[in-house]
Amino acid sequence: MIKQGSTQLCVKDLSFINNIKSMAVIGSSKKRDYFFLRNHAEYFKGPIYAVHPTVVEIPNFGKKNIFPTLKDIPGEVDFAFIAVPPSKILEIVDECVKKNVKLVTVFTSEFSDSGTEEGIALEKELLKRAQNEVRILGPNGMGLFYPKLGIAWRPQFPTTPGNIGFIAQSGGICNIAIYGANALGINFSKVFSFGNGADLDFVDMLYFLSNDPETDVILCYIEGIKEGRISDLKEVLKQNKKPIIALKGGQSETGSIAAKTHTASISGDNRLWNALFRQFNIIEVESLEQLLYTARLIDYYGIFELNNLAVFSISGGYGVILVDLLEKAGMKVPPFSPEIQDKLKSKFFLPGTSSNNPLDLAAQFFYVLSVYEIIDLALSDKKIDGIILDMPSFYLTPVLKSRDNQDFESNMVESLTLGHKHNKLLIPIIQRLNNPEERERISKKLIERKVPVFGDPLEFIPLLSKISNYKRRMERL
Amino acid sequence: MIKQGSTQLCVKDLSFINNIKSMAVIGSSKKRDYFFLRNHAEYFKGPIYAVHPTVVEIPNFGKKNIFPTLKDIPGEVDFAFIAVPPSKILEIVDECVKKNVKLVTVFTSEFSDSGTEEGIALEKELLKRAQNEVRILGPNGMGLFYPKLGIAWRPQFPTTPGNIGFIAQSGGICNIAIYGANALGINFSKVFSFGNGADLDFVDMLYFLSNDPETDVILCYIEGIKEGRISDLKEVLKQNKKPIIALKGGQSETGSIAAKTHTASISGDNRLWNALFRQFNIIEVESLEQLLYTARLIDYYGIFELNNLAVFSISGGYGVILVDLLEKAGMKVPPFSPEIQDKLKSKFFLPGTSSNNPLDLAAQFFYVLSVYEIIDLALSDKKIDGIILDMPSFYLTPVLKSRDNQDFESNMVESLTLGHKHNKLLIPIIQRLNNPEERERISKKLIERKVPVFGDPLEFIPLLSKISNYKRRMERL
Repeated sequence: MIKQGSTQLCVKDLSFINNIKSMAVIGSSKKRDYFFLRNHAEYFKGPIYAVHPTVVEIPNFGKKNIFPTLKDIPGEVDFAFIAVPPSKILEIVDECVKKNVKLVTVFTSEFSDSGTEEGIALEKELLKRAQNEVRILGPNGMGLFYPKLGIAWRPQFPTTPGNIGFIAQSGGICNIAIYGANALGINFSKVFSFGNGADLDFVDMLYFLSNDPETDVILCYIEGIKEGRISDLKEVLKQNKKPIIALKGGQSETGSIAAKTHTASISGDNRLWNALFRQFNIIEVESLEQLLYTARLIDYYGIFELNNLAVFSISGGYGVILVDLLEKAGMKVPPFSPEIQDKLKSKFFLPGTSSNNPLDLAAQFFYVLSVYEIIDLALSDKKIDGIILDMPSFYLTPVLKSRDNQDFESNMVESLTLGHKHNKLLIPIIQRLNNPEERERISKKLIERKVPVFGDPLEFIPLLSKISNYKRRMERL
Repeated sequence: MIKQGSTQLCVKDLSFINNIKSMAVIGSSKKRDYFFLRNHAEYFKGPIYAVHPTVVEIPNFGKKNIFPTLKDIPGEVDFAFIAVPPSKILEIVDECVKKNVKLVTVFTSEFSDSGTEEGIALEKELLKRAQNEVRILGPNGMGLFYPKLGIAWRPQFPTTPGNIGFIAQSGGICNIAIYGANALGINFSKVFSFGNGADLDFVDMLYFLSNDPETDVILCYIEGIKEGRISDLKEVLKQNKKPIIALKGGQSETGSIAAKTHTASISGDNRLWNALFRQFNIIEVESLEQLLYTARLIDYYGIFELNNLAVFSISGGYGVILVDLLEKAGMKVPPFSPEIQDKLKSKFFLPGTSSNNPLDLAAQFFYVLSVYEIIDLALSDKKIDGIILDMPSFYLTPVLKSRDNQDFESNMVESLTLGHKHNKLLIPIIQRLNNPEERERISKKLIERKVPVFGDPLEFIPLLSKISNYKRRMERL
């Protein structure tokens, strides 16, 4: 327990997490094909043990690592994943305390989440038995995903370590985020699904990630916190120096009731949360997709402030729509500086194009070497903070063959990576309405180069404003 | 010219379009591999002629249908697609008048769109030479896409006729919409790209589609109209009985300048357009994607009014987010009627689920026959107008094998088609963050059954409110 004297901050110490060396899966049974054991065993880098009263053999799992009880394990166990029926949970936790297990995930549900008196009482008793000796993630949670150590509760979780931390009560939300990481091109440092939060709660994990050297950006999906924890939350937020992106669940009347059924959370007053988000410059988003997309933008381009953008399109009409959306969201699409404008003009040689901002590439898009030069020029304009470029997916296969577009695809990918050369934002929109295989292949190449490709302008334009506003407020605070 | 006496409506008669029997492509040259000729020849159902002063042979095109000038063609020519340099345009139009061509597309640009005096003068002269004898789409437009007759300006345009009409000045915007039709699962009656609108303009085409028996829903992308046409526009809108969905380009300062460069359009005062949209109950959208998605929703489920929705999810947290988004957008997610609630409860047999609205299916999702029954029950509740169901794409392949999910995929597709049985809305969200091939395959099956699958709740939730509000206002008007 960390208690900072004068500031009265009360949070639990989780710094041991970065040094977990051994783990056990307790209660994984044949009926579910040893689901949680197999998943963890696939990736975990240290010794992993199976604990089950009757199981003595598990396919593809060393017999000598199977034990009837925790105390039979000869070595230490730092972390345990527990999936036993509610009736067994107390004795298992007693054993964990005796074995000096530091952290457990209680996957089992039907505690306070059930809304029944027995469930609520069982959760209280669970907490009591843990005696502050063993820290609990859950019950009714998936616990910890920690790719660097190979702690992963589901099959085929992406195990490249990254610097994005994520806290969500809901295991399902974590699953969507983690399985989405590859396609999005982001990587997580740690993901916490803490379910009912009987012991470790949102404030504890936020404090941990805020001080975790492996984490640079913090994502949260919050259903609610206990009233008594609000002053601690404020203190953690006050000390925090990392960008926090938050999605608050249960903001509507029915949503707050659903949150209560889901994880026994009290959503709290929207005004309280809104005030907190404003006071501590937290980037608030509307959906899980926005949460992940915002993380990706920050991961690829850092914290940026956008004032003036260039818009490139192949359809002049689509350019007009983009300009409207960007200006409505508070950004400007101004004329280029005169010297850049002159140079740009000389690069356009086809009719139906426009070298002014917004640029209408029209058929010149297929002269991909000129597109490279045009993007490079536009980004070299000191006035311009970045480029939004629209590219309908049916144009990915050029119909006009020219010497210039022999290596159309690789040259296009290089052009779209120019943002990083200039240390400015470049976002390509490849619409999803056509050519899905082609789109998928090229998107992968772009994402490998940390170019965040989107499919629809409304997916990211609101996020550009949110990140810019974060930066402006950060400088003011 | 149609002039309705007392109402003073002045619009051009285009009803002949539905009877186009023959066409010519004028000026398609070897340099671009006869692009426009080949495209039109691929689909056009009547005689099609190539007109070019020097070309006498074209690969895969009948030699006897190539003529040096229009007047050499022995048969009639109802429609001509013109792609000649600006310097040739006047003599070609003269020939069209003599040949009694009814409609021409002038693809050629650099008229008023160039902003130069010569360009503006040339456009005026073009109009004069047409003498109101031949109607012009353009210049600087792609003209007419009419799948029923096979009029199609680009390769691989989808040629299944539908009942959605689309008016856009911008050819690029039309291309995105038309190429998107297959993936979206919608079909067009007619699409007009009228470019600078020298002769036929937005008002003429709106009048035509509003009275066209082949069109039930009208989409528009509007950059602007001439001031003198506003009273005609109002009269057309007053008479119109079909749903109109509109995207107004050039609403921002830079956007309106860009619209002027693009199609020489005067965007006009936003207040004027907003007032028109309100007065005539036009569904206004923010992006091209929203325009097409709204058309799809109306195409699949008609004009609906949503008050009470059920939310299904596999992740309880995602259900909470959906409820928040729906209630913020003005819909409710109420408890089921007591008798339905009782029946629903009996269908849930796994822990961690919730049979209340929002329903948390959790692992029960994989017991797909029970999911069918649950959806069927929920839709039979008189209180409930529809279901929004979230299905992350990594769940498309069940990890738990049971007898119940032997034909998981086909049973799931059948379950998601139940909206049509109950004549209620059902929208599955299959998130795009994972499993793209699987997602693509299942989406296609759903779209064949007219189930509008989306990938992100923010893509369609605002549209549900827009359509509901349209219906409410329609009943009030």
